[in-house]
Amino acid sequence: MKAEIISVGTELLLGTTINSDAADVALLLSEYGINVYWQTVVGDNPGRVIEAVRRAKERADIIITTGGLGPTCDDLTKNAIAEAFGLKLVLNEGEEKWLRGLWRERHYTSLEITPNNLQQVMLPEGSTPLRNDWGTAPGCVLEAGGVMVIMLPGPPREIRPMLEHRVRPILAGLSDGVIASHTIHFFGIGESEMEYELRDYMNSLTNPTLAPYAKNAECLVRVTASAPTPAGAEAMMAPVIERVTGMFGSLAYGMDTPSLAEFTTKLLIERGLTLATAESCTGGELAKSVTDIPGASAALKGGVVVYTNEAKSRLLGVPEELIAAKGPVSYEVAVELARRVRELMGSDFGIGITGLAGPDGDGVHEVGTVFISLADAGHVWVREKRLAQRGRQQVRLYACQHAFDMLRRRVCGLEITEEAR
Amino acid sequence: MKAEIISVGTELLLGTTINSDAADVALLLSEYGINVYWQTVVGDNPGRVIEAVRRAKERADIIITTGGLGPTCDDLTKNAIAEAFGLKLVLNEGEEKWLRGLWRERHYTSLEITPNNLQQVMLPEGSTPLRNDWGTAPGCVLEAGGVMVIMLPGPPREIRPMLEHRVRPILAGLSDGVIASHTIHFFGIGESEMEYELRDYMNSLTNPTLAPYAKNAECLVRVTASAPTPAGAEAMMAPVIERVTGMFGSLAYGMDTPSLAEFTTKLLIERGLTLATAESCTGGELAKSVTDIPGASAALKGGVVVYTNEAKSRLLGVPEELIAAKGPVSYEVAVELARRVRELMGSDFGIGITGLAGPDGDGVHEVGTVFISLADAGHVWVREKRLAQRGRQQVRLYACQHAFDMLRRRVCGLEITEEAR
Repeated sequence: MKAEIISVGTELLLGTTINSDAADVALLLSEYGINVYWQTVVGDNPGRVIEAVRRAKERADIIITTGGLGPTCDDLTKNAIAEAFGLKLVLNEGEEKWLRGLWRERHYTSLEITPNNLQQVMLPEGSTPLRNDWGTAPGCVLEAGGVMVIMLPGPPREIRPMLEHRVRPILAGLSDGVIASHTIHFFGIGESEMEYELRDYMNSLTNPTLAPYAKNAECLVRVTASAPTPAGAEAMMAPVIERVTGMFGSLAYGMDTPSLAEFTTKLLIERGLTLATAESCTGGELAKSVTDIPGASAALKGGVVVYTNEAKSRLLGVPEELIAAKGPVSYEVAVELARRVRELMGSDFGIGITGLAGPDGDGVHEVGTVFISLADAGHVWVREKRLAQRGRQQVRLYACQHAFDMLRRRVCGLEITEEAR
Repeated sequence: MKAEIISVGTELLLGTTINSDAADVALLLSEYGINVYWQTVVGDNPGRVIEAVRRAKERADIIITTGGLGPTCDDLTKNAIAEAFGLKLVLNEGEEKWLRGLWRERHYTSLEITPNNLQQVMLPEGSTPLRNDWGTAPGCVLEAGGVMVIMLPGPPREIRPMLEHRVRPILAGLSDGVIASHTIHFFGIGESEMEYELRDYMNSLTNPTLAPYAKNAECLVRVTASAPTPAGAEAMMAPVIERVTGMFGSLAYGMDTPSLAEFTTKLLIERGLTLATAESCTGGELAKSVTDIPGASAALKGGVVVYTNEAKSRLLGVPEELIAAKGPVSYEVAVELARRVRELMGSDFGIGITGLAGPDGDGVHEVGTVFISLADAGHVWVREKRLAQRGRQQVRLYACQHAFDMLRRRVCGLEITEEAR
């Protein structure tokens, strides 16, 4: 079965909005073994939307559109779909009633719904509405001319739950056979090096397949198998996963986890271990990454953002003389940050990060120099990294990733290399 | 002049990577008044890349490809372009020499370059290489059959500087006339309400045009004018910008700024004012947003992440009895957070955030309840917001946005509404 994704929105063509919707749709389709060979983006232009739909009809069994369902006059997806299939738009009374109720509830007044809002409940005839409990514009699903068209809203916070709660049940009913995949996560090795070491093995495989890629300062290897049943696919993947994981030892940290941050935070929560953070150049990003995870309050005792020398002394008591003698970006200050924040918060572990994220330097260190430290009750480990040429945000991200890597190595009883490979 | 963007990468079709490259390319093209009507994404499949290129040749003057230039066997963009235009691939000696030098420098050894890496310097015959100083795969530009094809690498940290330093000069040489645009930023009004209030005025305009949209908890209105010169376009936009800004008073906070966070942080830096943060439910996100901006050390005296009750007492001395009596998510605790972190750090302003980001509640407040507080030497303001139905990350983002809104209103001498509109 083949699907095609059509994203509608001039903001996508202008580049003011990044098309995360297409990725969300694609992820769900791939779970059900539905191949996507084409994604197209068109603007809020009826002619081009119709042209894109007509072309997709020729080569796909399922068309999923994102965007263009809202109340503004640029929202024309349903009109274009109706026209491409020779259908009328009709008011859906069930959705109209729901929308009027929502309006009254949200505005806490008797104010009448504005006419542009009702445009949202006009659907191509024959469609089944997909209730949007996370916004105001319903989606809908239409079967016409041997093709299924699923129309979804554009805002990410609406389309994500719509995919999970409205589209997933539809796809589950369609698929025969499965394409299953797992992603093995690595930290401390680059994509090119990974591909080089894996190339012969990759080329010897046809099903399952292997594909390395890079994301958020991590290297990932996706293992994908096609089989009649989920259990069959799992059985085919297991030996491949074992072999790839075995090749890279402790550089592989997990599988099917969103990120090293989430993996490590959940590890702390599971083990009942606690953390405190003292961040200079990352400025709160490490604590934010931990607290992105629901339930993080069990793991994060507290954190300080000590972006200035004054804050390092005032909040943590790092001696001013030490900072003056060694500089704020130094091995010695990194040790103090981790050690002192751990003591201050009474946590199992303390992490300190100090470095030069750039773009400006300090006249001593290269931009991109970062010291990452981890303290437990008995020891402090420090990694000194040169993350130059990567830009400010990348330097900050890599520094946080090293902190999580050191922490997960300590919790798992692995050697904490002070120079990551 | 019309351009078309073709993104190559199976990871985009599978949804494991979000296509930010297309947005970056589109933003640059729109600066030079080059229209994009179509974006296409295809996988690492030679036939479909060739088909996409052939179609694009028919309808565009410029084709920009992203991805597929690297050293792995999936990297086939240049091969496909060569085939679509009936050209051979030839080794570019200049780039080969550069790549070999880079390899020696990065590996600090005499290790020979791996053969897969040399694939990166094979270019379609007649192309001019675009040196990639941020990675290893050069881009290139080819003029053939009346079409210009620009091939760029996929990793965002490579393509962004390539666009700025390699592609911008090419586009600047091509364009006649300009399409200029400005984006007015609002906080505290939704997209639908904005569109409703602007609709009549929007419909009365043809050049410039107006387009409202929503992004990162802000509402934006893009004003776009087409004119022979930049100055002409500016003159056409000025009265429109004045009118739109005037309609919404202090809800409009700035123009052409990346975000409320950056706008407010730069405002503090310019005015020589300082800030300290005490974050509970946002867990470091506010401090991270401030320190995303280079030079933030001048504005952020320091911050604490007081995710637990214990941290609130230990780091800031918030009385345990107060937390027990009022609860950690309360007006009173919010006041203490802002007041005490300001005093602790000796800053001009203190900000406190405490709330329930979810998904779990505390049995007292609705999930999404957040108190945001701002303290100066004489007063503490508090906003109590119900940000339910938005999900954990959105609640955290909105809470930070409210903090920045209160801060910018205080710095600019505007009224700080304790209930934002």
